[in-house]
Amino acid sequence: MIQDLWLIGIGTGSPAHVTCEGMQALREAAVILVPQKGTGKDDLAELRHRIITASGTTARVIGFDYPVRDPELPYLERVEAWHDEIARRWQAALDGAAQAGPVALLVWGDPSLYDSTIRIAARLDPRPAVRVVPGITAIQALTAAHAIPLNTVNGAVEITTGRRLRDHGWPAGAETVVVMLDGECSFQNLDPTGMTIWWGAFLGMPEQILHHGDLAGVSDRIIATRLAARAEHGWIMDIYLLRKA
Amino acid sequence: MIQDLWLIGIGTGSPAHVTCEGMQALREAAVILVPQKGTGKDDLAELRHRIITASGTTARVIGFDYPVRDPELPYLERVEAWHDEIARRWQAALDGAAQAGPVALLVWGDPSLYDSTIRIAARLDPRPAVRVVPGITAIQALTAAHAIPLNTVNGAVEITTGRRLRDHGWPAGAETVVVMLDGECSFQNLDPTGMTIWWGAFLGMPEQILHHGDLAGVSDRIIATRLAARAEHGWIMDIYLLRKA
Ligand SMILES: C[S@@+](CC[C@H](N)C(=O)[O-])C[C@H]1O[C@@H](n2cnc3c(N)ncnc32)[C@H](O)[C@@H]1O
Ligand SMILES: C[S@@+](CC[C@H](N)C(=O)[O-])C[C@H]1O[C@@H](n2cnc3c(N)ncnc32)[C@H](O)[C@@H]1O
Repeated sequence: MIQDLWLIGIGTGSPAHVTCEGMQALREAAVILVPQKGTGKDDLAELRHRIITASGTTARVIGFDYPVRDPELPYLERVEAWHDEIARRWQAALDGAAQAGPVALLVWGDPSLYDSTIRIAARLDPRPAVRVVPGITAIQALTAAHAIPLNTVNGAVEITTGRRLRDHGWPAGAETVVVMLDGECSFQNLDPTGMTIWWGAFLGMPEQILHHGDLAGVSDRIIATRLAARAEHGWIMDIYLLRKA
Repeated sequence: MIQDLWLIGIGTGSPAHVTCEGMQALREAAVILVPQKGTGKDDLAELRHRIITASGTTARVIGFDYPVRDPELPYLERVEAWHDEIARRWQAALDGAAQAGPVALLVWGDPSLYDSTIRIAARLDPRPAVRVVPGITAIQALTAAHAIPLNTVNGAVEITTGRRLRDHGWPAGAETVVVMLDGECSFQNLDPTGMTIWWGAFLGMPEQILHHGDLAGVSDRIIATRLAARAEHGWIMDIYLLRKA
């Protein structure tokens, strides 16, 4: 049974993204739950361990394995079943632990942004008291790396996914659009007239790559860079901001 | 002349919002520029000084006064003239300082979000190398305090202002809208059917207030709370997230 569950945003690649509140929470936690290796992204596992070490916590660190998603199920059902199974594994991992006290989970970026941890936590039975510690998002890592404002003066900003950009095109009336979760460089499908892009991959990490310019002019360069970086690294995380003149 | 200008996001009220990178940057800065008192929000001045002290920096702290905006000028011109004048005052404040080395400015929340510091920095002549250190935004302070996700599963999010919500209504097709810079509880002008609101004021501060529920049901409570809190405190900062079923 988990009474207090702390979801701690750790930022998006640099251990220095972690806030003072995040570090303090790691020190005050009794147990820290971490996904085991074998996720194919060992650099991310290493980053988590560096953060835990840097915090100076004496919490017990307990591993759990992520389940695989059942490819037989339709999409939404598959996600639901997967979330249920993750919640069960958190419980199971903790049943072995004698410690009582807050349980902490390190969440990539900010727990509120395109992440399922808050939803999975709501499936625990009995429901724990959930505390969320905000963390730097990939959006902020992107705008900081390029030293640009997110919005135009008093303008609106749309945050969306690669899939939505492909399916629905440029959001009606939008000036600034941030695209995440895009494995397909979906900006290719847009009319590039008057559009500027600021792109970043591996933000906050030593491998960070940035490109920006007129969409028509840099589109090919981004596609090629992304392909090469992904091949070299084994995986990639990228995000971009588009602004229409 | 400023060679290196560091814009450091300090989060939105809690000194513990500051990241390890932000603390480190304060320690490495040669000079920290801070707006003088007299802005009417002395609690914010105090917060800045608490953060500077907590960082353990030995940087020289130099004050500057914000100019007043010229009410005679039309809006955009007024903002431009004001930004020019702020840039001049930064220069002037530093001309007196003998120190060479990075100059740091503490920026509320994240420097990229509804903030003019990046644009003002671009007016300095000669142009300094600008480094942006991301900070927790009011949006993240809001979702963390309510322990809610920002987006629906793979859904889009629109970030906008109170004025835009009043002028343009609910953004076409939007599921989730975050409203900032709203002095008028502009949610009152929306059709509340099927709409849920999560509202927060003074997020991250001891005075933090939260309300949430069906928009139709809690709208009056939020308006009354906001009025009372503002009267008591002398000023208020609030933000809300609206979700349509
Ligand atoms: C599942 S979402 C998680 C987002 C995370 N919670 C946050 O606050 O940024 C993953 C997406 O975030 C973006 N992302 C996360 N980390 C990134 C990084 N270091 N560099 C570039 N993009 C990143 C990419 O668009 C990626 O597809
Ligand atoms: C000029 S903008 C600055 C935003 C800031 N750069 C950020 O990253 O959050 C000021 C607006 O941010 C929101 N805000 C900032 N701090 C807040 C807080 N502590 N509580 C509630 N709203 C806040 C309010 O909507 C306010 O009108």
